[in-house]
Amino acid sequence: MKALYWDGDRLAVVDRDPPGLPDGYALVRVHLAGVCNTDLEIVRGYMGFRGILGHEIVGSVIAGPAEWLDARVVAEINFACGRCAACAAGLGRHCPTRRVMGILEADGGFAEQVAVPIANLHRVGDRVSDRRAVFAEPLAAAYEILEQVPINSSTTCTVLGDGKLGLLAAQVLAAGGARVTAVGNHPDKLRVLRERGIETVLASDWRSDPTDVVVEATGSAEGFSRAVAATRPRGTLVLKSTVADRPDLDLAPIVINEISVVGSRCGPFEPALRALEAHTIETDALIAESVPLARGVEAFERASERGTLKVLLEIG
Amino acid sequence: MKALYWDGDRLAVVDRDPPGLPDGYALVRVHLAGVCNTDLEIVRGYMGFRGILGHEIVGSVIAGPAEWLDARVVAEINFACGRCAACAAGLGRHCPTRRVMGILEADGGFAEQVAVPIANLHRVGDRVSDRRAVFAEPLAAAYEILEQVPINSSTTCTVLGDGKLGLLAAQVLAAGGARVTAVGNHPDKLRVLRERGIETVLASDWRSDPTDVVVEATGSAEGFSRAVAATRPRGTLVLKSTVADRPDLDLAPIVINEISVVGSRCGPFEPALRALEAHTIETDALIAESVPLARGVEAFERASERGTLKVLLEIG
Repeated sequence: MKALYWDGDRLAVVDRDPPGLPDGYALVRVHLAGVCNTDLEIVRGYMGFRGILGHEIVGSVIAGPAEWLDARVVAEINFACGRCAACAAGLGRHCPTRRVMGILEADGGFAEQVAVPIANLHRVGDRVSDRRAVFAEPLAAAYEILEQVPINSSTTCTVLGDGKLGLLAAQVLAAGGARVTAVGNHPDKLRVLRERGIETVLASDWRSDPTDVVVEATGSAEGFSRAVAATRPRGTLVLKSTVADRPDLDLAPIVINEISVVGSRCGPFEPALRALEAHTIETDALIAESVPLARGVEAFERASERGTLKVLLEIG
Repeated sequence: MKALYWDGDRLAVVDRDPPGLPDGYALVRVHLAGVCNTDLEIVRGYMGFRGILGHEIVGSVIAGPAEWLDARVVAEINFACGRCAACAAGLGRHCPTRRVMGILEADGGFAEQVAVPIANLHRVGDRVSDRRAVFAEPLAAAYEILEQVPINSSTTCTVLGDGKLGLLAAQVLAAGGARVTAVGNHPDKLRVLRERGIETVLASDWRSDPTDVVVEATGSAEGFSRAVAATRPRGTLVLKSTVADRPDLDLAPIVINEISVVGSRCGPFEPALRALEAHTIETDALIAESVPLARGVEAFERASERGTLKVLLEIG
């Protein structure tokens, strides 16, 4: 099968044997997959991963338990052991021996087929197109914020960054009832939010008025300091991006203002799938372009260009 | 009156006029005051403060409302406006126009007299000696942890640092019912905790076994990274020290493990005073020495020596 493979040195579309089918797994024929910033970070050295990339997928089950055959599915990316204390506590996404699809010791979905634990599969409703379903994973990551931070109608939120994650996070917080201001550099991207009734402001015009919750989704080193300054005393700063460079940080304002900095990674698929079904979250406007898997390297180049939204790989 | 004055360049015991008595204030004759790491940071440039230092005091009211005259008191250090939204929300310690005794725009208590808003005074019970009462402020800062982080008998905690704040924080967490391990470099200091039934380990022998809560009280740049590594996924790292140097920090583990980093500063005096009264917290063993105010500069030198516990200034 064709697969987009990273050998630690070079990214290339190669021919690989299809994955085997371990006990408890299903084989998914991938329809469509999304390129994420984490993929771009990996080819810059993050996580030291070698293998087939790709962790945002939608596809169909072609082998596995009878009740799953032919199901259209999306997949959670953390392959947990299911037996440790973290798993027993319902924290499989933090299982210490987890493998992570396309990120850590498990081949990903930029390939014609990918093997996924059955426990990680979620069925996709008929009303959700592949082009929407492929957002389940990043949208779940945005919903993780609501799992971690209490939000209500009086909660003021600032979302810093109008990239893919920022646009999803701003919509999720607004859907959760919060009063959201999104700050970004791109009028065309902010327009997606403004058309949905979310207040937006260009970073150049923004005068930080500290809010209860701030989401740092710029992925930049300076973004963090700006996010600290935008968080009110005793407020919460949600840290969404794993920036590869290590910024020179001043922790004193965090102590003085007693800010909580909450790291936030993968999230629950259920609310993401419900939102995709109900169409409460706009995703089509987040797609920059779709590229066939054969041109996967080009897709990465395109996704790496500053300001590009979601690049999709058309697989099968 | 005599006062220990920092002019931005030089620390010296000088003669100053006694403070005036604004409306709503009391004049406190200071008995005893404690030197805090924040004082040492200020004379290294932190906060840009100029004036009389000192924010850990116990004394007697010598002027002010009749009902306070002669009362033995300790004082909260944040002088809030009492009129803004933060104050209305009970967050006077975060009032944006606050002055802070001996730290920000208000003279402190390394002086024969200090003026303190009446709202900031707390009476000290007869059973609490001056040498114990002078710990009310740093002990309140330790109790702040219990205000911010839910603790119960199954909560595992690591306290990094066996300085003054670490020894108080470990005791407060243990008194709150948590299972505490204190990590430090000084067997003699750790003994204070061990004698009170708290598990201790030398940093050189410590193998980080991640716990629910970690308190970073080393004040060092490396301490932060070690604290992150010692916090379990979804756990809480309490950041207690405002280190003046800016460490080169890697934020990725905070995101990957979804850690909450909670900045923690001043705390509630009530539980601190109750604990001093009930003798549930050991403070005598934390005193390195007492020095008369006239030798205040020497006291600072002594307090600056690595590993020195609390240095007290005997004032009147």
